[in-house]
This record gives sequence, structure tokens and C-alpha cells, in this order.
Amino acid sequence: MDPSFERIAALLQTLPGIGPRAAARLVLALLDRPQAQLDELGNAIIELKDRVRQCKECFNVSEDELCGICRDRRRDPRALLVVEKITDLQSVERAGLWRGLYHVLGGAISPVDSVGPEQLRIRELTERVERFVQQAGAVEIVLATNPTSAGEMTALYIRDLFARVPSIRVTRLARGLATGTHVEYADEITLKHALEARK
Amino acid sequence: MDPSFERIAALLQTLPGIGPRAAARLVLALLDRPQAQLDELGNAIIELKDRVRQCKECFNVSEDELCGICRDRRRDPRALLVVEKITDLQSVERAGLWRGLYHVLGGAISPVDSVGPEQLRIRELTERVERFVQQAGAVEIVLATNPTSAGEMTALYIRDLFARVPSIRVTRLARGLATGTHVEYADEITLKHALEARK
Repeated sequence: MDPSFERIAALLQTLPGIGPRAAARLVLALLDRPQAQLDELGNAIIELKDRVRQCKECFNVSEDELCGICRDRRRDPRALLVVEKITDLQSVERAGLWRGLYHVLGGAISPVDSVGPEQLRIRELTERVERFVQQAGAVEIVLATNPTSAGEMTALYIRDLFARVPSIRVTRLARGLATGTHVEYADEITLKHALEARK
Repeated sequence: MDPSFERIAALLQTLPGIGPRAAARLVLALLDRPQAQLDELGNAIIELKDRVRQCKECFNVSEDELCGICRDRRRDPRALLVVEKITDLQSVERAGLWRGLYHVLGGAISPVDSVGPEQLRIRELTERVERFVQQAGAVEIVLATNPTSAGEMTALYIRDLFARVPSIRVTRLARGLATGTHVEYADEITLKHALEARK
């Protein structure tokens, strides 16, 4: 195989979700593009880290010190949705259902992977929450970590942190049957949650 | 969402097999890479078309006028495997079973999509085959177009082209049950082929 072709395919294969076939398909697709598009994509990749950094408030991606969501005065600063990863934030934001702010933890507590609370942005969360309480009087924290053992452990840990503060209300995303699924195929834990939260 | 982040995600989404979520995941993965890797990938994309072009013989990707396969003196020039796309060539080559040369048609005959023989590299194929016959006396053409209606139509068309030339033997990849599949789930046409080609 051609060395330049192989080199770019090998670089693409180091990215998540791209195997050898997908990499070859991508390089062939790029070969069909006008040079202007290759220049645009290539330069965007080279300049990416100069342009995109982390929001110093919520740890979303941002071009400025504060991301567009944290800068938006119409967002409710008394409601904070806590997620594990930036992609989680993007999914909630795409759904267009949340009008408060976010906090990206950068992962979930997982002793097996040696990830403890100090590896996550939990200290930054408590500092933000204290500041928000001082400014607004009361704050709601919505725990939107994943319904996995690591996500549940992280949710329990954060819930405990704020348990004795009456001005802070901590909630968790509801669990139950996902839309479009069948009761027949639901696992026991999901069914248990769906039954307990019935209304 | 951040405009630089959105821009690069939008560029990646124009590539085959990359949806909005995959694009966001890719940009976040790129943000975690050292700048040297971003420079390497970005420059490889920008320089791709300067470095990689088409082999003038078989239409594989190549850095030179002739690709590595056509330049390789150990490959048998009396056997030509005809494929629709470069990715097909790469799959056969990866399997390491073919020691002859290749010919990439650039697609398959499909009247619905207004693709006729003149849109494919069939004239180039006949010229190559004539040259090979002059040099070697006899040539085998293996038709490895897809087992789809377009691929079959293309195979029939090429078979007809060389039907009256005794020094040219035209064969077609065998059809039957794929390894790892179950007879129970095989479609009727596959079963028909598997039965007819039994040995």
C-alpha cells in the first residue's frame, strides 16, 4: 500500500471509533474533496487547541474564558446539571430541555480504574455551589451521571456532600423504561426503577 | 456551542460514516492529543492530494505514476482481478491470497444511477488486457465485482466483451455461504448459488 495513504490512515485509526476499514474509507473520501476543503479541515485540526479551551466555570469546551452557556444571562444560575463528560452536556443541550447551567466532572468515581473524587472536578463543584448559594439563596443540583455503577457511586458521593445544607436541593435524573423499548426485554433493575417511580 | 468546535465537527460530519455524535467525540479526542500529533494529522490532510494520486495502470492509490503492486515484478501479469472500488482492492490485498494484478473500475454499471460502461474504466481495462495478451500470450480476468445487481450487470458486460477471444479466460468469484453464517438464515439466492456450486 502507498506510504502516504498508510500514514494518514494510521493517524486516523488512533481516534475513537475508527478502525482500519473506516480509516481507508475516510482517506479515499478526502482524496475526492477539493483542495480548499482539505486545507480548511487540516488547518482547523492544527489550530484546534489554540482556539478551543476549557470554560473555567463549567469545564465545557470554549473559545473564551467562559463558554457560551455560562455567559448566557438568560440561563438560570440557581440550577446546576452535573454530567460526567462534555458529550453528555452536548446531548442534554441538543434536547433543548435544560435552561440552567452545567458542571462537567470529567469522569466518574471508579475504584477499579483508580479514579477517586480528587481526580474529578468535585472541589470545583462545591466552590461553585457555595458561590451560587451566596448569590441566589438556594440552588438545585441535578445529578445526571450515567446509570452505571461508577455513575451511581459518583451521584451518591455528591448527594452526601450537600446532604446537610437545607438551601441545596439535590435531585437525580429519573430511571425507567426508555422510549421505544419493550417491557419484555427490560432488565430487572430497570423494571424495578420503573415500578418504584410509577405515577 | 463553541464556534471553533462546531466548525471542525461540521467539517468531520461531511465525511462518510461520521454522524453528529461521532464528530463531537472525535473533536474531544483531538483536544486530548499533544499538539505535535495535531500538526502531523493536519498537515497530512493538507498534503494528501499532493502526495497521493492514481496509479495510471490499475487506478489504485499511488505516490508515483505506478502503484507498488503494478511496480512489483513478482506479481503475475497474466492474471487481472477486476474490482469496483479501491476499498475492494484493499480487502483482497489484506487477505493476501491474490498474486496477480488489479484493475479498479471506479464503480459498477447501474442504469438507475445513470452509470453506464463509459463512466467506468472499462476502455482502460480492454487496452490493458490487449497489451497483456500481446506480452504474455494468455490472460485470466477474475471478475470480483459485488454480488449485487449492479455488480452482476458489470460482470456480465465485461464477460461479453472478451467472450470471443480464446486467449482470454474470464472467471467470476464463487458465490455461496459466507463463513460463520447459518444455513437457516441464508437467503434463497445465496442457497441457490451454494447448491449449484457444490463440490
